[in-house]
Amino acid sequence: MTLRELGEDEVIRRLVRLMPLPDEASEGPGDDCAKMPPGCDVVLLKTDALVEGIHYEKSAAPERVGWKAVARVVSDFAAMGGRAERFLITVAIDPGTEMAWLEGVYRGMARCMRAHGAVLAGGETSSVPEGNAAVISVAATGRVEEEHRITRTGGAPGDVLFVTGTLGGSIHGKHLDFTPRVREAEWLVTHHKPAAMMDLSDGLGADLPRLAAASGCGFAVDRGRLPVSCGSDTEGAWGDGEDFELLFAIRPNQADALAANWKKAFPDLPLTAIGHLTEKTDEKEASRGWDHFSARR
Amino acid sequence: MTLRELGEDEVIRRLVRLMPLPDEASEGPGDDCAKMPPGCDVVLLKTDALVEGIHYEKSAAPERVGWKAVARVVSDFAAMGGRAERFLITVAIDPGTEMAWLEGVYRGMARCMRAHGAVLAGGETSSVPEGNAAVISVAATGRVEEEHRITRTGGAPGDVLFVTGTLGGSIHGKHLDFTPRVREAEWLVTHHKPAAMMDLSDGLGADLPRLAAASGCGFAVDRGRLPVSCGSDTEGAWGDGEDFELLFAIRPNQADALAANWKKAFPDLPLTAIGHLTEKTDEKEASRGWDHFSARR
Repeated sequence: MTLRELGEDEVIRRLVRLMPLPDEASEGPGDDCAKMPPGCDVVLLKTDALVEGIHYEKSAAPERVGWKAVARVVSDFAAMGGRAERFLITVAIDPGTEMAWLEGVYRGMARCMRAHGAVLAGGETSSVPEGNAAVISVAATGRVEEEHRITRTGGAPGDVLFVTGTLGGSIHGKHLDFTPRVREAEWLVTHHKPAAMMDLSDGLGADLPRLAAASGCGFAVDRGRLPVSCGSDTEGAWGDGEDFELLFAIRPNQADALAANWKKAFPDLPLTAIGHLTEKTDEKEASRGWDHFSARR
Repeated sequence: MTLRELGEDEVIRRLVRLMPLPDEASEGPGDDCAKMPPGCDVVLLKTDALVEGIHYEKSAAPERVGWKAVARVVSDFAAMGGRAERFLITVAIDPGTEMAWLEGVYRGMARCMRAHGAVLAGGETSSVPEGNAAVISVAATGRVEEEHRITRTGGAPGDVLFVTGTLGGSIHGKHLDFTPRVREAEWLVTHHKPAAMMDLSDGLGADLPRLAAASGCGFAVDRGRLPVSCGSDTEGAWGDGEDFELLFAIRPNQADALAANWKKAFPDLPLTAIGHLTEKTDEKEASRGWDHFSARR
């Protein structure tokens, strides 16, 4: 059955029943807006999008596409020291699409939401003109305790730069199945809070200059020390996107203790010091990650 | 200059400077997530999307497209008795698009945000494969005082159904320039709070069955009483989408006082009693508004 044959209301009914929902009906889908529960932590907001032919191929398993759509956003909340809570899913898609495919996407989204204790709060569906690329736009709210909240702006010259995991070659599969670094980020903000942190979505070569600029710094990276994913190389580790690892800066006098404790906490996940922040430099020379509009690498 | 020539970071920089922003930098764009300000009202969430070739034509003035993208969401908050506050804008668009066009869209969005006291909190940009339709996805948070919050679920058999303004033929221009019924909705929830309310985005014939179903009711409409927009007809008033007028149900003993006071408060905007809610009926017979996937009218 295609979406066209089912009609919008039935499509939405079938998708919503796949999803984890808030206990309180007024906090879930079904009205003009969803209500948020009261609370006193800091509320975070995030939006992101997955585009057919850009972030996934039509031939990809829909469950993996759905996982990725939600996991990207979970990763952004982790990078702020927080947790995603409530999702708003907007899908613009060709009405000739098979319902089974879209249900697969929602199953993947539901799996990722459940894995992270999040729920669906609302959404919107629209058609695109026949044959056009589907767009899955994911907005979410989350929370963080004020003392744990971490931004890109707190770095200072001399801070040591670390990345989790390995980088490069995500396109060969990891980009659809990655594990957002939620546990690691929570451990960091409670045990060795970094000065600045972000997740690597556009590649180290594009994202590190952003973190450095937000902190009013330049940076120096020892490319020989980049942790390269199996099957990739230094170029890939620097320029490929969608690693969804954490990049953070920490005061130099805390770096050794962090590295030692990390090994005990996460023996299976590498943590690598790749360089440090410097005084502000001409940032033009460095940027070589993924750019959505220039598509240069 | 096209988006491709400028590159993603520069595109974002140019767009953000057009927009109304929160006073507090951590509540605006620039990090992995935006922070929300603390507060004790009920927080509402909403997402919506505008698709090229579906909700606007490429030839439409970009300022009008931007106005519409934000105004649709403002209208949803109004329908809950609330106000939109913080926007997250996701744009997926062909990199060959002229920057001037996209800036026009953002100018229109900024104008609508300013007109309603709202700000940009964050966003995301992505490419679509060349030649594919652009998708502008708009998520927002808003607030409402609990006593003023209104849903679709509170209607009961016998409630009188009202619509604001006139219906039908929005495609001839109103769909790009409409005024969300914020003032009217606020007046309603403070003076004559309806039992159930929503805004008409998919057309009365699609939306009324949704409101009735959410309230566990059926409905009866006197089609001869529908307020028809100039140049449209009863069919259009029933089946066309994108009127963005308010549809609400109010207890029958309050209907006369409401109608009389409305005329004093809003002498230039018609308010029309079009029928009433009934005991639950077979809802199949009625639905004939816009369906995004079936595209039937």
